[in-house]
Amino acid sequence: MQKHECRQHIRAQLDSVVDFWLKYSHDTVHGGFFTCIGKDGNIYDELKYVWLQGRQVWMYCRLYRTVDRFRKPEILKAAKAGGAFLRKFARVSSSSGQWKCAFCLTRDGKAVKVQRSIFSECFYVMAMDELSRVTEDQDMQVRAEPTKQDSVSVVIGFQTNKHLEAEQMMEQLIHWVRVDGSGLGRPQLPGDVPTNSMAVPMMLLCLVQQLSEDRRGVEQKYAELGSWCVQQILQHVQRDGAAILENVSADGSELPGCLGRLQNPGHALEAGWFLLQYAAERGDEQIQTTAIQKFVELPYESGWDKAHGGLFYFLDVDGHCPTQLEWSMKLWWPHSEALIALLMAYSQSRKAELLQSFFQVYEYTFSHFPDPAGGEWFGYLTQEGKVALDFKGGPFKGFFHVPRCLYMCERILDDLLASKE
Amino acid sequence: MQKHECRQHIRAQLDSVVDFWLKYSHDTVHGGFFTCIGKDGNIYDELKYVWLQGRQVWMYCRLYRTVDRFRKPEILKAAKAGGAFLRKFARVSSSSGQWKCAFCLTRDGKAVKVQRSIFSECFYVMAMDELSRVTEDQDMQVRAEPTKQDSVSVVIGFQTNKHLEAEQMMEQLIHWVRVDGSGLGRPQLPGDVPTNSMAVPMMLLCLVQQLSEDRRGVEQKYAELGSWCVQQILQHVQRDGAAILENVSADGSELPGCLGRLQNPGHALEAGWFLLQYAAERGDEQIQTTAIQKFVELPYESGWDKAHGGLFYFLDVDGHCPTQLEWSMKLWWPHSEALIALLMAYSQSRKAELLQSFFQVYEYTFSHFPDPAGGEWFGYLTQEGKVALDFKGGPFKGFFHVPRCLYMCERILDDLLASKE
Repeated sequence: MQKHECRQHIRAQLDSVVDFWLKYSHDTVHGGFFTCIGKDGNIYDELKYVWLQGRQVWMYCRLYRTVDRFRKPEILKAAKAGGAFLRKFARVSSSSGQWKCAFCLTRDGKAVKVQRSIFSECFYVMAMDELSRVTEDQDMQVRAEPTKQDSVSVVIGFQTNKHLEAEQMMEQLIHWVRVDGSGLGRPQLPGDVPTNSMAVPMMLLCLVQQLSEDRRGVEQKYAELGSWCVQQILQHVQRDGAAILENVSADGSELPGCLGRLQNPGHALEAGWFLLQYAAERGDEQIQTTAIQKFVELPYESGWDKAHGGLFYFLDVDGHCPTQLEWSMKLWWPHSEALIALLMAYSQSRKAELLQSFFQVYEYTFSHFPDPAGGEWFGYLTQEGKVALDFKGGPFKGFFHVPRCLYMCERILDDLLASKE
Repeated sequence: MQKHECRQHIRAQLDSVVDFWLKYSHDTVHGGFFTCIGKDGNIYDELKYVWLQGRQVWMYCRLYRTVDRFRKPEILKAAKAGGAFLRKFARVSSSSGQWKCAFCLTRDGKAVKVQRSIFSECFYVMAMDELSRVTEDQDMQVRAEPTKQDSVSVVIGFQTNKHLEAEQMMEQLIHWVRVDGSGLGRPQLPGDVPTNSMAVPMMLLCLVQQLSEDRRGVEQKYAELGSWCVQQILQHVQRDGAAILENVSADGSELPGCLGRLQNPGHALEAGWFLLQYAAERGDEQIQTTAIQKFVELPYESGWDKAHGGLFYFLDVDGHCPTQLEWSMKLWWPHSEALIALLMAYSQSRKAELLQSFFQVYEYTFSHFPDPAGGEWFGYLTQEGKVALDFKGGPFKGFFHVPRCLYMCERILDDLLASKE
């Protein structure tokens, strides 16, 4: 396959996926987005998952802001309505007096569930920051000047009537991760040792990159945090460089049991392209090399199912059977992340093997996940590649991984084709 | 197949399964049981899941107490060691000053995780009560005399140095379910409406039956609770009697969305045989008829996979795709529960169709789940019946559903064969 043909296909896919969500996901009564969307566009549940609300606001704004053909009033209007819904309903005060974001809301915004983790808040920050870039609303933005000398200090005890936007929520996230996580509501238990889970530094690095983009002052403010996130991610390189493990101890050593042996190839690949972006911004060749070898090539090789094709969801580094029931399923998002990671790694290194691997994942992905009849992609296949869950959106699948992948790949291919290599 | 041949096979299976756990699961250093046991008996994780610790103590004691060939010193010794481990380590004090049981402990008993539900405590009660029947230790037993007039009152503020045994934990469970669940630690949220989840009244009914067995005073004490549990279970008969739904509102009406439409055929069948036992104890023909028609025949018919055989894990009553990734997998425990439910329903009603259905499930179960090479049963198959997870024990699969099924079926077959019908 040629890069040109590939770009055309990806552009057409992105247009089609955007159309799907514009058509089916908007709640014109309460604002926000339906994300439980069946095979043919039917809404099979009205619950609003905050991760997905935040991600859709972010993705709409990013497309509106950076891609000419998506600079459409209906996209901006939907993003603003989604942002307003989040600002009005997502935040709930926790028992510690800090603000948590709900995990899930009713259609009209009543909190149903709060998770004891940081991710709802992360997607809230992503949404508010990107929305502020489109609307140029300073209230939503992060401020370049730190409020205190100590960049990890946190504003505690927010007034309930004051909008808590990207920066304040970001400071609270940093506080939970680096200073004191008790506000998340998990009981402290003697056997629950502090763990460095890949998702946490990955997500914070993503936020640092989001908040810092084209803002010199903010970049400086979060420089130390970005560097810390990278070091935390690099701690997941284990077994003398032979494996990426999803969970390690706080001091970067291997944890016992299933938790310690768990591998999540899609997550490692996603971390890979976050690291590649970080390396490119700084011209850091050492991080670039590590990212390509350890976070792109390694999880791609160990995660690929030689028998049936596709990337496994979970693996055990010692070859035991994972305890997650869905371990052998093929999910849309690891494939989305693999496409970005492999293409970005190729564009930075020009190693031909990486482009070959990209086309292998591309072939599997586009012959299995998209649904030409009903639009969008299926999300969940069996190990053998049969559709196992036939909805297009659900509690964890929204307008995010698919369009982000298509958007990123289109941009990288634009650059590659423009450079005429 | 003949009932006689079937009984011989089930007896041999039970002997073999007991041998497997006696051989591989005992932690002779710290007490308690390893439950993460691989295909060939290897321990792949040392965490101790409290549900499974309690269930194994219960099952060992039940076999020791009621089946002559299992009245062996090694079984009693292991049960006592498991009980001692639970008494020493399972209970953690919660922020409300009440006692919670941990969900998961390290090998040496340090709490790793506490769930915001009642089930660890339920299996603790089951274990302690059955153990007290074997050891005749009054401290562990429930007392026949209520501590207060009001049977749902609870002893709050236990002294930390005093053993909290079956009765006290039972009173706390009742308090959480019927009076005030705030001690479970879930934040109160406006969109989180009170729900009657099948598991809760089912589990409490199971405990009422456990605690009341052969104890007249206790039976009276919990009579009202048992009746309440039955009414709560019957609320799950929905759609004019055409479906059992897993979650209903507190007043017994259908809930919106995926939660409201969820069906769990294995759970409905398990509730079915709990109701059949309840009906038999009281000679209540109305409950017996409802149990057979609505909780045995109905979930068996709607839950059976006509294409590949076996019972689905989850279904949506309106035919939408469930959002649980594992919805179409075939798990060992719904099949275990179906075997008990169908055979018990047949033994009470002598309807030939129920015996035919029993043999259909029997055929599927014994041709798919047992592993003649490594012993015990596989727990998790794909929709098509291929082994998807090859371990014999895991975080949710211990020494419980398989031996309880074999034990119950052997006893029912003994009775059927003795009655020479």
